[in-house]
Amino acid sequence: MSRVLHGYFRSSAAYRVRIALNLKGLACERVSVHLRKGEQRADAFLALNPQGMVPALVDGDAVLTQSPAILEYLDEAYPDTPRLLPDGAVERARVRALAAAVACDIHPLNNLRVLQYIQGPLGCSQEAMVAWYNHWIAEGFRALERMLADDPRTGRFCHGDAPGLADVCLVPQVFNSARHALDLTPYPTIRRIAEACDALEAFQAAHPSRQPDAE
Amino acid sequence: MSRVLHGYFRSSAAYRVRIALNLKGLACERVSVHLRKGEQRADAFLALNPQGMVPALVDGDAVLTQSPAILEYLDEAYPDTPRLLPDGAVERARVRALAAAVACDIHPLNNLRVLQYIQGPLGCSQEAMVAWYNHWIAEGFRALERMLADDPRTGRFCHGDAPGLADVCLVPQVFNSARHALDLTPYPTIRRIAEACDALEAFQAAHPSRQPDAE
Repeated sequence: MSRVLHGYFRSSAAYRVRIALNLKGLACERVSVHLRKGEQRADAFLALNPQGMVPALVDGDAVLTQSPAILEYLDEAYPDTPRLLPDGAVERARVRALAAAVACDIHPLNNLRVLQYIQGPLGCSQEAMVAWYNHWIAEGFRALERMLADDPRTGRFCHGDAPGLADVCLVPQVFNSARHALDLTPYPTIRRIAEACDALEAFQAAHPSRQPDAE
Repeated sequence: MSRVLHGYFRSSAAYRVRIALNLKGLACERVSVHLRKGEQRADAFLALNPQGMVPALVDGDAVLTQSPAILEYLDEAYPDTPRLLPDGAVERARVRALAAAVACDIHPLNNLRVLQYIQGPLGCSQEAMVAWYNHWIAEGFRALERMLADDPRTGRFCHGDAPGLADVCLVPQVFNSARHALDLTPYPTIRRIAEACDALEAFQAAHPSRQPDAE
């Protein structure tokens, strides 16, 4: 069955899916959609994803969009590969909440279209944009640090000693935090977990700098 | 088993969970956390949810946060109640993508803390804030309208003829769109589905105006 990921090297959401595919050992062809050139708004791509956003995963006949939905899909469609979610409704809810703390509360505020609106229609300076960017990561990481540090279910990774859905979302956000040099000193648990992830080939191979479309 | 939802009448995320509880027929005590008075940052609430956000659902011994995680939890923990997600990994991914198109791409940009930052640190006018607010709903609804209108799996509701996860997320966003009088004429499918939902008691009883803490 053919499998194609339409993504962009620096897209956090595509980075998540790349990590998940690697953790699960699922081979996947890659197509680059150049966001800064606006290729996500070309008719060919809109036919695949009317939202005009990456990633889109074509898996056989199915077209899947929205990274949280794609990550859940991979776990459901390929149950014999390493699981992104643990067993048990309460445990799964914890991991999903950690993932959502990144995917709903940090990342949406800092993606390209939002930064463009802030510097365009809102007329904000580069300095104000950078402060905005780091503010939402700092706010989110402060909460996430407590959610991780105060919970005995946190292990070598966000939940226990195997990487999963929360780590898949956390690592691209930690990568983004370097963009405007946010100080990560206040978040030792986040840093420790990100380092544990970065030691794994599945995470290394998904890194933006290792993608064919990296600039 | 005791079940308590900590929410706020006008919180979209709490509104989602109220609808889901009603659709599933799960009784639940309600506690109001007054967001405009900052009660979400009080120590008592932070002990429950370090993120300082509503909703938080206490279900027996478990404390659950982040509405997307809570909605999935309810479906997994109470499989004998009406399901929010359909069968089949591809179908489930479609519903989750529709939900994420609201929960990740519209709502995070328009919640209270973000609007406060735009009018505070960014120093934007009320007019610029309203334009921002409606811009992200319009952007999101344009994509969502196509995702719904162009797909034969859309029925009376977002996916088929029973309400589910996507409707649970869509209806509070449609409610929010009235706040600054966004014109919904360009989104006939969204309007039709929201009307079908609003005809159901489960949605009516969850409406902000019907909550004890409504102002």
